[in-house]
Amino acid sequence: MLKLYYSPGACAMASHIALEESGATYEATPIDLKTGEQRTPDYLAINPAGVTPALQTERGVITQNAAILTFIAQTRPQQNLAPVGDPFRMARFNAFNGWLGSSLHPAMGRLLFSRPALEGEARGEAVDLVLTRMQLIEDRLLDGPWVMGDAYTLADGYLMVFERWARAADLLDSARFPGLNAHLDRTQERAAVQRVLAAEGLEAV
Amino acid sequence: MLKLYYSPGACAMASHIALEESGATYEATPIDLKTGEQRTPDYLAINPAGVTPALQTERGVITQNAAILTFIAQTRPQQNLAPVGDPFRMARFNAFNGWLGSSLHPAMGRLLFSRPALEGEARGEAVDLVLTRMQLIEDRLLDGPWVMGDAYTLADGYLMVFERWARAADLLDSARFPGLNAHLDRTQERAAVQRVLAAEGLEAV
Repeated sequence: MLKLYYSPGACAMASHIALEESGATYEATPIDLKTGEQRTPDYLAINPAGVTPALQTERGVITQNAAILTFIAQTRPQQNLAPVGDPFRMARFNAFNGWLGSSLHPAMGRLLFSRPALEGEARGEAVDLVLTRMQLIEDRLLDGPWVMGDAYTLADGYLMVFERWARAADLLDSARFPGLNAHLDRTQERAAVQRVLAAEGLEAV
Repeated sequence: MLKLYYSPGACAMASHIALEESGATYEATPIDLKTGEQRTPDYLAINPAGVTPALQTERGVITQNAAILTFIAQTRPQQNLAPVGDPFRMARFNAFNGWLGSSLHPAMGRLLFSRPALEGEARGEAVDLVLTRMQLIEDRLLDGPWVMGDAYTLADGYLMVFERWARAADLLDSARFPGLNAHLDRTQERAAVQRVLAAEGLEAV
């Protein structure tokens, strides 16, 4: 059986939603970042990088949201969770997810989770970088109503994680980011997303 | 025809090598980061994120090395550039590339390319983070002789970019990182890699 290691509310929620949307039988195990559980020997044996998500399969462990989302979509093609039959559209899907992981996530992570917290000029620069990257999605990357256009894909659940962080940090201004706000609300209405939020002990923001 | 936008020596070299290894007919256009060409309106029309690589195809543009590598491998399966027929192995390939893009690249980029340059404690912390992440590859992620084991894949050309940066910055100590040093030397010996280095006006390091 598939087994997902996740941290409630963290980026692994994208993989958690993907499993729930796919209809797969799986088990989800929380890893407590606050107590440093991701750096225990037991967890490092699963993912030596010491981060979530990690997806245990019968053949071994898969890490990185972008890789896990593609794996789930490819192994359950009948669920239409990504354009798996079209290498070009799949590359666009992978590029969007890759950009979230390599650009938006590091920028938001630095702003929201640096310890000690950023202050002064460093904080101002970090806010600007996050807003610039969110603006890029708002203006150019979000075709609408979903990331890939008319059909929901697993990229939407991944984007939603960062939209939730942004709204919780009062960064998701409704006048500046109408598309992202609408996308967040639309995604949080999905039944599978609501089940994942409940499983992680969270509510819609 | 495929058209790649790259910056000499930058991470887009991974996509450049992928095209060269694939035998595809393509054109490669340099974008000069030093003069800010990546932020000109002409280039932003190609990639609104203002970074390289970007691969123009007849159906549109693909960004992000990890997405481009998978696209090239999938559209030229006879070249055996990635385990495209096996979703699990492909997920491991994608996860490795995703980790390079989301973890190693941001850490190395911050250390090597911050302007103004990092100094003092900030620089020390940035060096430690880079070395920790390189150690993870050395100890756990590099199966050897190639990233995926016995067969060269496009992940090797991507890893090589960062090994080149590390060696050029005197971070690739041969006692601490024997696997990475051997991998860099092995990869730079490939004919396709040598053609790309020459095309980008560079030499082996």
